[in-house]
Amino acid sequence: MPQALATKPTSKPTKPVSANAIPKTMTALVKPAARPGLELREVPVPQIGPRDVLVKVETTSVCGTDLHIYKWDEWAQNRIKPPLGLGHEFAGAVVKVGADCEQAKVGDFVSAESHFTCGNCFECRTGDGHLCEKTVIIGVDCDGAFAQYVRVPERNLWLNDRAKITPEIATLQEPFGNAVHLTSIHNLASQSVAVFGCGPVGLFTIAIAKASGASGIFASDINDYRLNLAKKMGATKVFNAKNGDQADWFIKANEGFPVDISLEVSGAPAAIRDAFKIVRMGGKVTLFGIPSKPVELDIAQSIIFKGITTYGVIGRKIFETWYRTRWLLESGTVDLNPLITHRFPLGEYEKAFQLLASGEAGKIILYPNGKPK
Amino acid sequence: MPQALATKPTSKPTKPVSANAIPKTMTALVKPAARPGLELREVPVPQIGPRDVLVKVETTSVCGTDLHIYKWDEWAQNRIKPPLGLGHEFAGAVVKVGADCEQAKVGDFVSAESHFTCGNCFECRTGDGHLCEKTVIIGVDCDGAFAQYVRVPERNLWLNDRAKITPEIATLQEPFGNAVHLTSIHNLASQSVAVFGCGPVGLFTIAIAKASGASGIFASDINDYRLNLAKKMGATKVFNAKNGDQADWFIKANEGFPVDISLEVSGAPAAIRDAFKIVRMGGKVTLFGIPSKPVELDIAQSIIFKGITTYGVIGRKIFETWYRTRWLLESGTVDLNPLITHRFPLGEYEKAFQLLASGEAGKIILYPNGKPK
Amino acid sequence: MPQALATKPTSKPTKPVSANAIPKTMTALVKPAARPGLELREVPVPQIGPRDVLVKVETTSVCGTDLHIYKWDEWAQNRIKPPLGLGHEFAGAVVKVGADCEQAKVGDFVSAESHFTCGNCFECRTGDGHLCEKTVIIGVDCDGAFAQYVRVPERNLWLNDRAKITPEIATLQEPFGNAVHLTSIHNLASQSVAVFGCGPVGLFTIAIAKASGASGIFASDINDYRLNLAKKMGATKVFNAKNGDQADWFIKANEGFPVDISLEVSGAPAAIRDAFKIVRMGGKVTLFGIPSKPVELDIAQSIIFKGITTYGVIGRKIFETWYRTRWLLESGTVDLNPLITHRFPLGEYEKAFQLLASGEAGKIILYPNGKPK
Amino acid sequence: MPQALATKPTSKPTKPVSANAIPKTMTALVKPAARPGLELREVPVPQIGPRDVLVKVETTSVCGTDLHIYKWDEWAQNRIKPPLGLGHEFAGAVVKVGADCEQAKVGDFVSAESHFTCGNCFECRTGDGHLCEKTVIIGVDCDGAFAQYVRVPERNLWLNDRAKITPEIATLQEPFGNAVHLTSIHNLASQSVAVFGCGPVGLFTIAIAKASGASGIFASDINDYRLNLAKKMGATKVFNAKNGDQADWFIKANEGFPVDISLEVSGAPAAIRDAFKIVRMGGKVTLFGIPSKPVELDIAQSIIFKGITTYGVIGRKIFETWYRTRWLLESGTVDLNPLITHRFPLGEYEKAFQLLASGEAGKIILYPNGKPK
Repeated sequence: MPQALATKPTSKPTKPVSANAIPKTMTALVKPAARPGLELREVPVPQIGPRDVLVKVETTSVCGTDLHIYKWDEWAQNRIKPPLGLGHEFAGAVVKVGADCEQAKVGDFVSAESHFTCGNCFECRTGDGHLCEKTVIIGVDCDGAFAQYVRVPERNLWLNDRAKITPEIATLQEPFGNAVHLTSIHNLASQSVAVFGCGPVGLFTIAIAKASGASGIFASDINDYRLNLAKKMGATKVFNAKNGDQADWFIKANEGFPVDISLEVSGAPAAIRDAFKIVRMGGKVTLFGIPSKPVELDIAQSIIFKGITTYGVIGRKIFETWYRTRWLLESGTVDLNPLITHRFPLGEYEKAFQLLASGEAGKIILYPNGKPK
Repeated sequence: MPQALATKPTSKPTKPVSANAIPKTMTALVKPAARPGLELREVPVPQIGPRDVLVKVETTSVCGTDLHIYKWDEWAQNRIKPPLGLGHEFAGAVVKVGADCEQAKVGDFVSAESHFTCGNCFECRTGDGHLCEKTVIIGVDCDGAFAQYVRVPERNLWLNDRAKITPEIATLQEPFGNAVHLTSIHNLASQSVAVFGCGPVGLFTIAIAKASGASGIFASDINDYRLNLAKKMGATKVFNAKNGDQADWFIKANEGFPVDISLEVSGAPAAIRDAFKIVRMGGKVTLFGIPSKPVELDIAQSIIFKGITTYGVIGRKIFETWYRTRWLLESGTVDLNPLITHRFPLGEYEKAFQLLASGEAGKIILYPNGKPK
Repeated sequence: MPQALATKPTSKPTKPVSANAIPKTMTALVKPAARPGLELREVPVPQIGPRDVLVKVETTSVCGTDLHIYKWDEWAQNRIKPPLGLGHEFAGAVVKVGADCEQAKVGDFVSAESHFTCGNCFECRTGDGHLCEKTVIIGVDCDGAFAQYVRVPERNLWLNDRAKITPEIATLQEPFGNAVHLTSIHNLASQSVAVFGCGPVGLFTIAIAKASGASGIFASDINDYRLNLAKKMGATKVFNAKNGDQADWFIKANEGFPVDISLEVSGAPAAIRDAFKIVRMGGKVTLFGIPSKPVELDIAQSIIFKGITTYGVIGRKIFETWYRTRWLLESGTVDLNPLITHRFPLGEYEKAFQLLASGEAGKIILYPNGKPK
Repeated sequence: MPQALATKPTSKPTKPVSANAIPKTMTALVKPAARPGLELREVPVPQIGPRDVLVKVETTSVCGTDLHIYKWDEWAQNRIKPPLGLGHEFAGAVVKVGADCEQAKVGDFVSAESHFTCGNCFECRTGDGHLCEKTVIIGVDCDGAFAQYVRVPERNLWLNDRAKITPEIATLQEPFGNAVHLTSIHNLASQSVAVFGCGPVGLFTIAIAKASGASGIFASDINDYRLNLAKKMGATKVFNAKNGDQADWFIKANEGFPVDISLEVSGAPAAIRDAFKIVRMGGKVTLFGIPSKPVELDIAQSIIFKGITTYGVIGRKIFETWYRTRWLLESGTVDLNPLITHRFPLGEYEKAFQLLASGEAGKIILYPNGKPK
């Protein structure tokens, strides 16, 4: 069902958008300085370049990355240059179009690939843009979408169809795309699948595995709230890794057999080791969760003697993953609504970050321009 | 969920089977001579060699191939050497084990790969046994399973688990395996799929595509009974090709876009051409239906300019396809029961063949040792 | 050995190029009107847009497509809108850079991908730009490189390194890339390979197959001059298809065995059929030669019963194929010099076209700005 | 060029072999007890079962595994049950055939797959016999080929053609097969390849990479003798890892770029880490060398952020690898003769083991039935 940017005539704004209506300043959620916490500020509406558009943000969602920046952990301290506006998952309407844009139109209902790639390097020129070493991430390396307006390069736009997808789900396409990438490396139909980690990407992964005909989906986490969501999304059996040896549990859950495919979404060193341990001879281990330091791995037993294929997933294949994402969501093959557990106006961001930190949330939607009734 | 022949301890006969109880003769459905029609005959129970087992047949099902032999068409006249016992889809219990068998035991509840391959040729030694040029097919090249007992080489046995699969569904694993092979060439998750032909393998294909997360499944046939079954098995939209241009219909059904993957199960020359015509640039065409003569194909437009990948499917990957089949069926990922439309004792075979010929049937089960209550 | 456009500091012009030196008019080889033949004309030097560059052409080479346009055959009559400057294989130096270009610099020694793709469609956005339906081909759909200067969009440029590749070989990268694409679909190492058709792309294919460790390379054509070049490029055995049944010959040449891989470069219907006929069970058939009309193919015997994988090759994977091309040529893994059989100043184009039409030529280089001493 | 066991009529013994001529006892090189060292003993000629053959050994070669057993290191102490006859690389003539064999004939010139797999497990039934957990290795788990005669199951035989391959090279097919497996995971044509470790399998790997069109082959080891052999087999550049940072060297050797493919054959933890470090974004790392304990690996940087595909190679794909091996060797695509550095009668085995231990040897051939003149 290939559909290019230009080929969706049915995408219409809910109401007319007037370029005149763009104000000078706006509310944005920013990291003001090199310390924990965020601040709601009145800032200028972004300037756009000739190949950019300005998007009026209807919905955004909070990612674990935002929480790292909020907390100002080691990773954030090394990467982030305050002041910075956060937010990289969003949907909204185009309200202004740069002079050299080729396709975008005022009123387009869009999401965006959050990784702005250079377009000129080896990786970009050979279909591996997701590996571009010059990638700039919105809300991480430049001002983001926890704001009333956001600047986006035209080539990062993803045109949605209002008749087929809500702004909330359109927003989730960005993080969901990670799971689409993760689950498209190997065909899951008929296979037994282990999912380590039931944060949002793990939960997305379970939903896709279920929709893709996996014969068994076994999931672990250390948070019961998330394990309940895992069951809701289609996990056959779930396990709280605090309650015992998860490697043993996976094998038992799969009737005494090692699984065909391990999908590692937690980044926990023990889980990474277990992902290899519980997979069958000739099985597949796909790694997405990022461990914070080197991991000791029994390469001989884990990879060589078992003939294992391993693959590392980072971001989304641009735009192959976006098309798969659209097709899964628009067709109703995967329904993400059960994962939207909370919705707040942007002003209540503290609540959102506390919930996310507690682990007692699925995806949380923020509305920078007010919550719809 | 890998499970070898030997690793399923729970497979038990419904009642004790005694080797003493094997009679000298049995009832079998045979092609008696080079002419149309079949005959129910009393024949000797088969002798087995040291690496064979004898299976008491509980259930068999009728295949299009059986109908070709019944009708005595050109293909049958060239291939079949009467007298011959028909039937290659079956399940039953092992009642006798040859002296050199390594694993089979009396009482094992089994199905069988119907293609007996040589084991020594290039294809057999490199994992392509389904392409062995010395293949002997049970019920086609040697006596088959439309009989109370059937001889099977031990290495063709497939051990089932009575706790997880009924004899009827165990029987369907053989034809279903063709569809499992057909649908495992490309990952169907998120893809739009066209299925040409809704005979049993087409219907199996639709069921798997649905379970595998296809975003749209569009199916055509020339028989409304089958198109109704297609809808029941998960087709998004169906079309009777007698009612107009099916190529146009497929594109329209897919909202104006060519499909990602064409699965050709009809063998009709026009359908083969249309399978290429309606697939997108860079799409996939997998061919299973066998045309009776050469087909005129616009190679330039159909394959080269579109960068199409084509693959020809014959039989089942032995035994990779069987494992996938087990996992799809035992886990409930695919349910074939809606496709079993009729059940008869073997003696009412004429009814079964008439129904099959009329197209007003899904799969028909025959019971050579009596229909269970 | 990934090398992006920007990463090759050693590429220098042989002599300083001054922007002031660009004249108002130039000599170009054009199709003046809808009739056979070409004409050398004085025309304006092309204007360039903000994302284009102007290249001073040092070398070009003649393609079979140019001959079709020269002869004004049916294909040419349908596609070409005269007046049109021909030529799509070339190398030269950038002499002028549009205002919005990001990387190109005056003096860059460049070749170019001749297919200008839209960049916005499904195919372009998913790494299949070679299948873009809006492709504009230089020298076919817009003015080409049989001229002293040529306009090229920056994103189609391929930066060469003068220290590592001559202008003649740099020119051949475009047609050679077709063969690189063709031979990269399947790993040729250890495989027996049949090549149908020994025009330039067939000869390139043979050279790559030889360098890639094919265990046997069997080639056919109907022209002894080309078959001699085939031997020179590494064919194990060659056959003039006028001298008997080529299918028989291929099997005999391969010691009585079908080949592992058929590469069809001729477009002749009989060769297409034979490509399937002589390949082994489970073998691969890759199609590049374009038949002028539909071909009758025994789909059952040629594809289905043999479990064949077929793939259609059009153009080059952009830019994956270009990198492979560079690495094969710069490292000396493949040497194309033996295939350059003739070199003329552009003014002697008639000689070049006559030679090409006779089949008594490999690749012919034309020099629009004079032949170097 | 598929050739099954039965299809090579030209394989003839050099002289008639008479079954009567088989003696009662023979000389064999054995590990007599749980301690370092080996012993030449007179032992009974092996009995064969109905599906076995007896082979009169013409040539054998010494493997690193034999050295482990000789030295009686930790691995050997855990695995080997003395007394045991060593040796798993060999060629010779069939002199006796078990009653139930289907194809082998007295006089057949054979090598053998040294891994005897069960044939019944999931791995064996799905084309992954090399991963069978019940594998019995000749010369490791049962008596081997450093003897005048050796017992081999018929299904492990590999029939050679005396007209095309010498006994010495026929012997090397077993270890060479590991490198064939290793190099067939990814297409090496045009790619830059790093090889870590220049023991025999590393040297084989270099030879295949060279024959397969790799654009650059960069190899490291800590032994200059082996690095010289590496150059002889086709390495572009070599490096003694004792002389500095090998990761830096690889990048410099490849003109400042990371390599496309890393092939790890050393098993050294630092080399494993470097294999990931020096490979490009989206590159491939194939692991064969077995580290003796767990390795600390920066999974985030080495696999995930770079989108790396990793695969573990153990043994040979049975028999796919054997066919590729035959085709590479018989066609002359790869010549292994430069790697045979020493030849001794079996009695001089101490010399062979000392040489191997010193690292000053390529492959060493032993002749259990006397060295040919």
